[in-house]
Amino acid sequence: MTEHENEAPVRNRRAKSVTRAEEIQKAELRVRKSQPDKPCHQPRDSLFSWSSGFDNFTGFVNWGFLLLGIGGIRLLLENFIKYGIRVDPRQWFLFLSGKNDGGEEHPSILLIFYSTVPVVLCLLIEKGLAVEIIAHGPGMVFHVVNLIVMVLMPMVVIHVKDSGFSLIGAMYVCMLYAILFLKLWSYVQVNMWCRLSSRRKSTSQGRMRRQSLSCNNLQSSEVKQNGNATADARDEKEGRSPALVQYPDNLTLGDLYYYILAPTLCYELNFPRTQRIRKRFLIKRILEVLVGCQVVMSLFQQWMVPSVKNSLIPFSNMDVAKASERLLKLAIPNHLMWLCFFYLVFHSYLNLMGELLHFADRNFYGDWWNSNNIDTFWRSWNIPVHRWAIRHLYIPIVGMGYGKSTASITVFFISAFFHEYLVSVPLKTFKIWAFMGMMGQIPLSALSKIVEKRCGARWGNIVVWSSLIIGQPLCIMMYYHDYVVTHFGETLLEDYSIV
Amino acid sequence: MTEHENEAPVRNRRAKSVTRAEEIQKAELRVRKSQPDKPCHQPRDSLFSWSSGFDNFTGFVNWGFLLLGIGGIRLLLENFIKYGIRVDPRQWFLFLSGKNDGGEEHPSILLIFYSTVPVVLCLLIEKGLAVEIIAHGPGMVFHVVNLIVMVLMPMVVIHVKDSGFSLIGAMYVCMLYAILFLKLWSYVQVNMWCRLSSRRKSTSQGRMRRQSLSCNNLQSSEVKQNGNATADARDEKEGRSPALVQYPDNLTLGDLYYYILAPTLCYELNFPRTQRIRKRFLIKRILEVLVGCQVVMSLFQQWMVPSVKNSLIPFSNMDVAKASERLLKLAIPNHLMWLCFFYLVFHSYLNLMGELLHFADRNFYGDWWNSNNIDTFWRSWNIPVHRWAIRHLYIPIVGMGYGKSTASITVFFISAFFHEYLVSVPLKTFKIWAFMGMMGQIPLSALSKIVEKRCGARWGNIVVWSSLIIGQPLCIMMYYHDYVVTHFGETLLEDYSIV
Repeated sequence: MTEHENEAPVRNRRAKSVTRAEEIQKAELRVRKSQPDKPCHQPRDSLFSWSSGFDNFTGFVNWGFLLLGIGGIRLLLENFIKYGIRVDPRQWFLFLSGKNDGGEEHPSILLIFYSTVPVVLCLLIEKGLAVEIIAHGPGMVFHVVNLIVMVLMPMVVIHVKDSGFSLIGAMYVCMLYAILFLKLWSYVQVNMWCRLSSRRKSTSQGRMRRQSLSCNNLQSSEVKQNGNATADARDEKEGRSPALVQYPDNLTLGDLYYYILAPTLCYELNFPRTQRIRKRFLIKRILEVLVGCQVVMSLFQQWMVPSVKNSLIPFSNMDVAKASERLLKLAIPNHLMWLCFFYLVFHSYLNLMGELLHFADRNFYGDWWNSNNIDTFWRSWNIPVHRWAIRHLYIPIVGMGYGKSTASITVFFISAFFHEYLVSVPLKTFKIWAFMGMMGQIPLSALSKIVEKRCGARWGNIVVWSSLIIGQPLCIMMYYHDYVVTHFGETLLEDYSIV
Repeated sequence: MTEHENEAPVRNRRAKSVTRAEEIQKAELRVRKSQPDKPCHQPRDSLFSWSSGFDNFTGFVNWGFLLLGIGGIRLLLENFIKYGIRVDPRQWFLFLSGKNDGGEEHPSILLIFYSTVPVVLCLLIEKGLAVEIIAHGPGMVFHVVNLIVMVLMPMVVIHVKDSGFSLIGAMYVCMLYAILFLKLWSYVQVNMWCRLSSRRKSTSQGRMRRQSLSCNNLQSSEVKQNGNATADARDEKEGRSPALVQYPDNLTLGDLYYYILAPTLCYELNFPRTQRIRKRFLIKRILEVLVGCQVVMSLFQQWMVPSVKNSLIPFSNMDVAKASERLLKLAIPNHLMWLCFFYLVFHSYLNLMGELLHFADRNFYGDWWNSNNIDTFWRSWNIPVHRWAIRHLYIPIVGMGYGKSTASITVFFISAFFHEYLVSVPLKTFKIWAFMGMMGQIPLSALSKIVEKRCGARWGNIVVWSSLIIGQPLCIMMYYHDYVVTHFGETLLEDYSIV
């Protein structure tokens, strides 16, 4: 009562009348209790009535997860009854090596070995630029040509090999080359910053003034003096080597390959390092990677493949009810696979590489599961790519004088291109579903922000999850349908529908 | 820091070293930030690592409910695709009237009308006891005979009519007679208390002294004097009639039928009453009853019947994998139906009757959804029956000098008998699955208490929900299987398996 002094008169009167009503009720109860019929009723509201004021429904959260678990077990049983055990570990190596039924070679493995060529080329160009054998302009042209040729290589090989290349093998080689492209882009750009910075310090040529105007660099060189002093003082106490690698000492094959293996897409001359390898942590991650790979592969062979195949006919016949049912059925294994895949790659694998390489920055993902709109989701689910996009695309574009929205849309555009690349090239069907799916995130993001504002954070979060659960299988179905139509013709669809 | 003064030395040292480590890290960061390669990494742990201390996974609750919703929609679609629309409102009336395909009459309706006979008989016996035409001993014998004949009546009618009685019609008539049995038991016992109390007051015969020793009655008569004084004082202010009905003025047909229609199983001479009928509340409850009945009926026709039929063969062949899959598939619609049924009966219907009859005590159910062990669940899901069991079974048995565990087990035993009665009589298969199911609650209760203690309240709650979701369909399957085997023979099972 003391906390609400200003409300006191009204509250007191109400409180008094409540007390009086209570007293009357109590007196009534006393009278009734004194009867020989042992009364047991008293005026009360049911818990579901609003007037009861009851709102503890936490038990239903357990109920929800229990039903989910039961549904999952049932689906698993149904799947085994229908299809038997389809998991075949022998196929996994073949898949990964890229060898197909018709093929003789392991094109994925060849392409992995080939990837050293553009990497070494890139280093050589950088060396040339550092010792000024190659001028800045032609050097950049060489780099761009090298990177574009690298990205096109899997497309050409997959096109030439055609049926001799398995889908999964092709897909992960494309993934590898896309990652290499982003890594080398970052490597070239960072080395360019360093080169320009060191030249600006030694000489002050007019051609470079434009780039050195960024006050960032001016500030940073001031801070550097103080920083070095502090660091030296500290290092005397700690007995550690303070030596930061300076450009162009970093241009070695060892440094470049450390960066290529490190779990990041942003090059730095001096990555933060850990002191030691935590053995228990390492063993856990290794086990997770080994078990997780099996789980994802098994889910794929046992659950995804039959679901996708089954949904082909209803999807082709535009039978809305059946296609929706199939789509929802496909959504569950696809989503579970994605979740496993996410954990496997972003937690287990990247942490494993980080631990082995003494790489200290393990910020590979944010808490995207709590994100209340699409933007937050895209910013937090894949931190390495997000960081790359900010550092090597967004900030340079804004620095070049363009607006922030231009920069955002460019980021989305490049991201959409790589999504398309990762799907279209292995499938050899150049449709634009993945590209459209990515570009569709822009209106969806606006929608989710409206939902978040109007209906609250919880509904924003639900929109994010829905787009994740439903959007992916929709794209997969579209691609698979087009893939079957393009490569096996309409006749196959008709054969299927007879069966 | 001030809250933990005694820990201060250790904490301070640790805090200092933390601060020092932070300072070093900051200095390092400053040095690194000053480099021309624009460093963006810093030492951090991944969110899923324990060392990160991150624990906000609320988004996964939304995820759970979303997956549940998607699963539900898919099941609905699958059901419509497989079976088409099976809802047939014409059948509902036939079901309820008890008329079967073969039958000519509506035996359920006849049995409902017949139920007035034991009710009126009961009242007549009470009247006789009140005016002392009938002595206490023979009167009790008459009551017991009347009640037993009443409970046996549906069994006999269903056995005689046999195929002319629909399952659902038979089931709800049995339910009605069981409720009537509990109500009349309470009526007889309460009137007995009143009679004994009034006689004890007027005369103090040696025969009655044994029963009046309960100090409860002594106390209550004292309180009554005070209570009456208070009540009189209040009534002068309020201008309301204080007149409580006293025994034997309550022995009228109107009072008895008010009690029979009222949403309670415990008789009282003066029920707490509401002042007025809330019209909006009443309309809502009427709509809920109308819509809810349709939903339950539709779920039954559309989902339960096909699921139960489909699970018959795997269940009969003891095919564990298929039977489990079917059982889990049956569990979902059964559980949803039960939830709808619970809300429909315990919230909508009982509140509707309460509102119409000015009955003020609406405490028909507790928050069983939060209960952490089986005991709490049974105490809170069906308050009218629980209250009846405490008032008319448990307390009298304890009052007779038996132990509390004896009383508890007796309550469970009677409850198990009525569960068996409600299932076996309509199905005409006298197996003991329901009885065993109910008696099995005793070890299950012990188990759930162990789980609650060892693994925490959440896991206790999950055990309660699991037993609810899985236990019911298991019993249904057992009964349906035995029902088909008994009434249609093994041949039908074989016919089914060919189809």
